[in-house]
This record gives sequence, structure tokens and C-alpha cells, in this order.
Amino acid sequence: MQVDGKAYRSIWFDHAQQQLNIIDQTVLPHQLRVLSLPNVDSVCYAIRSMQVRGAPLIGATAAYGMALGLKADASPAAEQRLAEQLLATRPTAVNLHWAVQRIRGVIADQPVCERAELAFTEAHLICEEDVKTCSHIGDHGLRLIESLWQEKQPLQAQLNILTHCNAGWLATVDWGTAIAPVYKAHNAGIPVHVWVDETRPRNQGAHLTAWELAHHGVPHTVICDNTGGHLMQQGMVDLCLVGSDRTTAHGDVCNKIGTYLKALAAKDNQLPFYVALPVSTIDWQMKNGLQEIPIEQRDADEVIWVQGVDKQEEFSSVRITPAESSACNYAFDVTPSRLVTGLITEAGIVNADVAGLKQLHEQIQN
Amino acid sequence: MQVDGKAYRSIWFDHAQQQLNIIDQTVLPHQLRVLSLPNVDSVCYAIRSMQVRGAPLIGATAAYGMALGLKADASPAAEQRLAEQLLATRPTAVNLHWAVQRIRGVIADQPVCERAELAFTEAHLICEEDVKTCSHIGDHGLRLIESLWQEKQPLQAQLNILTHCNAGWLATVDWGTAIAPVYKAHNAGIPVHVWVDETRPRNQGAHLTAWELAHHGVPHTVICDNTGGHLMQQGMVDLCLVGSDRTTAHGDVCNKIGTYLKALAAKDNQLPFYVALPVSTIDWQMKNGLQEIPIEQRDADEVIWVQGVDKQEEFSSVRITPAESSACNYAFDVTPSRLVTGLITEAGIVNADVAGLKQLHEQIQN
Repeated sequence: MQVDGKAYRSIWFDHAQQQLNIIDQTVLPHQLRVLSLPNVDSVCYAIRSMQVRGAPLIGATAAYGMALGLKADASPAAEQRLAEQLLATRPTAVNLHWAVQRIRGVIADQPVCERAELAFTEAHLICEEDVKTCSHIGDHGLRLIESLWQEKQPLQAQLNILTHCNAGWLATVDWGTAIAPVYKAHNAGIPVHVWVDETRPRNQGAHLTAWELAHHGVPHTVICDNTGGHLMQQGMVDLCLVGSDRTTAHGDVCNKIGTYLKALAAKDNQLPFYVALPVSTIDWQMKNGLQEIPIEQRDADEVIWVQGVDKQEEFSSVRITPAESSACNYAFDVTPSRLVTGLITEAGIVNADVAGLKQLHEQIQN
Repeated sequence: MQVDGKAYRSIWFDHAQQQLNIIDQTVLPHQLRVLSLPNVDSVCYAIRSMQVRGAPLIGATAAYGMALGLKADASPAAEQRLAEQLLATRPTAVNLHWAVQRIRGVIADQPVCERAELAFTEAHLICEEDVKTCSHIGDHGLRLIESLWQEKQPLQAQLNILTHCNAGWLATVDWGTAIAPVYKAHNAGIPVHVWVDETRPRNQGAHLTAWELAHHGVPHTVICDNTGGHLMQQGMVDLCLVGSDRTTAHGDVCNKIGTYLKALAAKDNQLPFYVALPVSTIDWQMKNGLQEIPIEQRDADEVIWVQGVDKQEEFSSVRITPAESSACNYAFDVTPSRLVTGLITEAGIVNADVAGLKQLHEQIQN
């Protein structure tokens, strides 16, 4: 998408320099810093430290991690080590497995000398496919926003969309998932306004979604995660749009911690709550998300220390808790399918239930 | 309550020094700083800047503000100005009105030379009554916790209570409202553990509730406001206990922004959600909280800048949003009575509905 008029992606391979580049998301929104990742160790560090994050982008980055690793050593033993190293970086992300498996599938039974090149080609393809996927999600979501706007237009000056965490272009290669429809609607001239949940503890909403929207020129307001319920009660939200890290075959949605609370509020106020996701994040083997999805616990310091810039615009962090208190940090929660109005995928919008996902499964098989 | 073994109140009048003292809550949990408030201007500043906060403590402080002001000028014109000045500090707090009116009632028709002394005596009385009120709330809540613990004891090692914001002793003169039952239970040897919502934007949970509990020795864990839903889904919460700034005659509860989301999650997981409050915070004229209670909007900078201490333990704040983004800051929300299991008052526990409040009203009339 656009950053002050210049087109960017979150990850790109510079063919002239033979160099993999990413936007370092740990210094946003305060700096736009491009990093080169020369090897699998730097890729693993980027995923683990969340220089890149978001299910689709993690997948794309991991694919390049495999390629970079195979460039150094393409033996079957090295391939196995690489896969294990990459899979260990973020336990919850199903895309990580998907991307690593996809690369391994392509290089299987291929001559060792050709494997790295094949892996790079596949990683490029994964990126291009992701852009196409997200663009399609955007198109399907756009139709939803258009029809909602037609209904609301006589009564209000803008369409208010609430989102949680970052499911924008920075979470994917381009466009985003939940925010792709917002960009498409904004570009089409629909006056969308986004309520951006700051999304504690890591504040991906305040850091990333707000930055994306600001630099693409989409009207938005940052709010504390506590605020959405009140806004919904007061008729100040027309639509909730969030992403998903993992969706079960029954339609349960695992997404950033706090998503479940917003889904409850949407239900309580009869508001549409849509989840946008690439089909690749659906775990077709899994049924009951609450019972089956393991929830990553991250370092308590993410709760205790809040990162930002001080008055001199220097990076800094502040401790908000007493030195004597401990904290705990679950990174995700599961929103039961009964609270989800629909799933927006690249193949269309379906109900978040067994029938809807069955329909989707049949559709993508054809 | 205890601070590392020494008894404290949040506000006290030092008769020897003829001096009003408060704990400056804006520097907690990082420093324990006692401030003297010599006049009504310093009292207004303390309320407005939230050096004191919490409905009951605001009431007690405002009562002393009237007394201090009347000491300087006890004329009827001054009395009117003082009342207006104090009432303008925090628009939502019903206790502010209650306390100012109570002082005005006591001094009405009294000789000008006696009014300041009468006001001080009444302010002292308000404090003593508040301590008694909160202690009674604690006693009623203790019985609730005892019976819950009897039920859970065979299955678990501790009783997990989730709270939002600060309704502990720092919000009152002593004991607190929602946390009073927790102190009584802890003191009685029941192994309570408190999940402390950090409570953005001002982090009263992380700053104040955690500090209180840490220094009284009550086991607790600080969590982001997003986390409670997940904990409830996973059976890690037995009881929600929150305070209230204002409760309607139909049982709707106005409390810190985000309370409504936790009440929804408690309902969805069939967990008890209790609100503890002194009867003085009930607005008997008001019925529908969602329609009738005005919600204070505070400075967006509270969302944008997060306060704490840096690695050198120096006070600092960090900006978490892009310079280009705006924010909005609603301070409270309304939890509809249908989500509230019961109201814990100094006069006992009643249902949060018309019948329950009618019963309570009759009870306190007798």
C-alpha cells in the first residue's frame, strides 16, 4: 500500500541486490526502517522478535528463511534442521507450518544443487499469491461495506469500522486481511472511519494499524481496548472487522487476545462481526477452538513495560506496575463461531459454522 | 489498610498540625508521597489531576475542600462559589455532589463564625462513616467469597477473583469497595488470588490495585484488559468484583471504561459478576443508565502517552501512537443490570433490578 504516496510491501526480494528486505515493525510507528535479512538466523530472529508478524507475513518470511538456509546447505539433514528452527519461532502460527511444508514439498526429490533456487522461486510465488489472496479478500469485503454504506448513508456522514490488532498490509505482504476491505472502500470513495483498538500488550493497533491508515490517508481514531463496548452501545460502530491467526473447521476463530470481548459486545448490540482470513489459515483438522487451540504465553515484560518514544522522540519504555507485582501474558484468545457473523476469505464470504466451512472447502477443491 | 505493615488511610486530617493529608495517587506505584492540601484550590487540583480519585474518596476530599474554603471565607456568597468550584472538577462523580450538599446542609442557617468548624466536623464524620460503610461492604462480600470458596475448595488451591480499575482502599478512605471483601477474605485465611486488569488508559489497576495488594500481601497478577475473557473461558476466574461510580435505581452500573466487556464475558461463561458500592453512589432518580448517564470524555493524551518509570526508575511517559493519529478517551461505560449478578452494599447484597433496589431503599429508610 501507500506510505505517503510511495508504494510499499512488507517484504520484498531485491533481485538486483539478491537481498531479502523487510520493514522492521518493532520500530513503527516512530521510524520506517528497512532491514535486510541475509540468512535463516536473521529470519528466525525477525519472526521471534516480531520484526515481522501477522500470520500471512510470517508464512512468507519463513518461506524465504527456508530458501536462504538451503542456499547455505541444501542437504536433507540441513533441510530438517532449518524446518525445526523456523517452526520453533512462533508456536501458534499455522501459516508457519504451511509455508515450511510448501517449500519442503517443492524441493522434495529434487537435486541438491537446484533446491535453493526452487525454494526462492516458490517463496516469490507465495508472496505474489498472498497479495492476490488479500486483494480478493478486499474485494469481497468491499461488497459488504458497500451494502452496509447504502443502508447507513441516509443517516450518517461516515461508516464506522472497529478493528483489533493489526490485520492490515503489514500483517501480510500487501493489502492486509481485515483492513483490505477498508482500503478498497476508502479508495472507492466510501467515507470509512476506523476505530483502532490499541491492542495491549504490544499495541499493534496503536503502532501499526494507526500508522498504516495515517500514511495511506484513511480517517481513524485510536482507542483503548476497553472502549469498543461503549462505542457499540452508543451506535458509534457499524461493523467489526478483525483478522485471524487460525480458524477451525467449525468456525471458531483464534486471534489476538481481546478479540473475544469485542465479539461479545458486537453480539450484544446486534452488530456485524466479520473475520477476514486467507483460506490457508484454516485448520481443517480442528473443530473446537476453545479446547484444541494451544494459546501462546509470551513474556510478562510485554505487559509490565510499555514501549514508545519519549518527549525527545527517543525510543524508551516505561514500567507501569509495582516492582513487587507479577504479570501474565496470553497472546491470543478464541472467539466461538456463534459470535462470528461471517468469514471473509479470498474465495468469498461464508458463515462461520460447519456448513459454511464445508461449502468453502468444496469450493476451493473445484 | 497496611503498607508493608504500617496502617494507612488515603486521606486523614492531622489534628496536631491542623493539616489535611492525602496520598498522591499520581506517583503510585513508584513512590509513596504524602501531600498536604492547605486550601480549596489545592483540593480542586487534587481531584481534577486525580491525585485523589475513586467515588468515595472524591466525596471525602470535596467535603474537606468545603471546610478549608469556609475557613478562609464562610459567607454565603463564598459558600456558593466553593460549591461550584468543587462540582466542576469531575462531572461524572455523584459523590462529589452528595458530599458538597451534605456540608451545605449542615452549615445552612448557622452563624458564619461557626460554619468552618461545623464543616470540618462533618468532613471527619464523612470519613469515619466511609470507613464503616466499606468495612460493612467487606463483611457482606466476605460471606459471598466464603460460600464460593467452600464450593471450589475441593477442586482448586486458590479462589481467583478478577477486578477492573481500582476499587480498593485508595478509592475510598479505607478498605475499598470491591476489594474490601478481598482484604477480609485474605485476612480470614482464604487463599484469594486477584487478576488485576491494568485498566487503560490511566492504568489504575496496574498502578493502584496492584500496589495495594502487593503491600498488604495479597497474591495477585496484573493482566492486560484484553485478557479476562480468555481467563474466564479457561476456568481461571471464579468471581468478578468491580466498583461503581454511579448505579441507577434499575441496577445499571456506570464504572470505569471496559467494565461492560468483562460483564459480558462473565455472563457468557456463567460466572458471578458482582458490583460493590456504597449506597451513596446510587442515583435513585435515574433509571436507564445507558440513556441517562453522561459519560465523561477525558484528554486524548491519556491514551496517547503512557506513564510509568523508565529503567532508571525516573518518571517518564512514552507515546505509543503515530504523531499523525488522533485518539479518543471515554472514561466510563455502563453495564446494563441484566449482566450484574448482584450489588454488594453496606446494607447487604441485593439483586441489580428494580425489586432489589426497591428492597434496598426500604431497608435504608428503616
